[in-house]
Amino acid sequence: MNIGLENINKAFESKARLGIMSVLMVNDEVDFSTLKSLLGLTDGNLASHVKNLEELGYILTKKQFIGRKPNTSFSVTEKGRAAFNEHLNALEAFLKNTKNNN
Amino acid sequence: MNIGLENINKAFESKARLGIMSVLMVNDEVDFSTLKSLLGLTDGNLASHVKNLEELGYILTKKQFIGRKPNTSFSVTEKGRAAFNEHLNALEAFLKNTKNNN
Repeated sequence: MNIGLENINKAFESKARLGIMSVLMVNDEVDFSTLKSLLGLTDGNLASHVKNLEELGYILTKKQFIGRKPNTSFSVTEKGRAAFNEHLNALEAFLKNTKNNN
Repeated sequence: MNIGLENINKAFESKARLGIMSVLMVNDEVDFSTLKSLLGLTDGNLASHVKNLEELGYILTKKQFIGRKPNTSFSVTEKGRAAFNEHLNALEAFLKNTKNNN
């Protein structure tokens, strides 16, 4: 029995990670507070997910000052883009497989 | 910006849970060792996921003896079937949305 889960990437399993990646796929750069409010996450929750995605090389963090205010923003890397696309394809294959079996 | 994640069910986020549910959706009853080998999980890992899904009312556990050997098997409940279908629809909507934006 093939259930088609082989290429699902554990890094993107959670709803928060799916959300972060899908926002970054379509926006060159998104700052912390925008991402937080788009996804309805707490500071700590978002910080922990982006840290992990950065460690995997999937996103980049940029810290800068805008005027006198510190600002943190994120962008997706080429590696992240490729990995996320692969994950989306795997989810699609899984869904197709599961729906055909039902 | 609507990223279409609202109806994704956190109970089914992990690859293991997706696997357990999709196996049970198409088989009336599946025993522990079959499920374990189909999904490539450890005893502890599978036990913890099924316990959680049972607590949510999504699956049922049956313990019985086959001859002298204890046997544990699982089946999906109506509630579980409905929730999983809703999750699959949510994933599908998310994928459609994400792919259209790319």
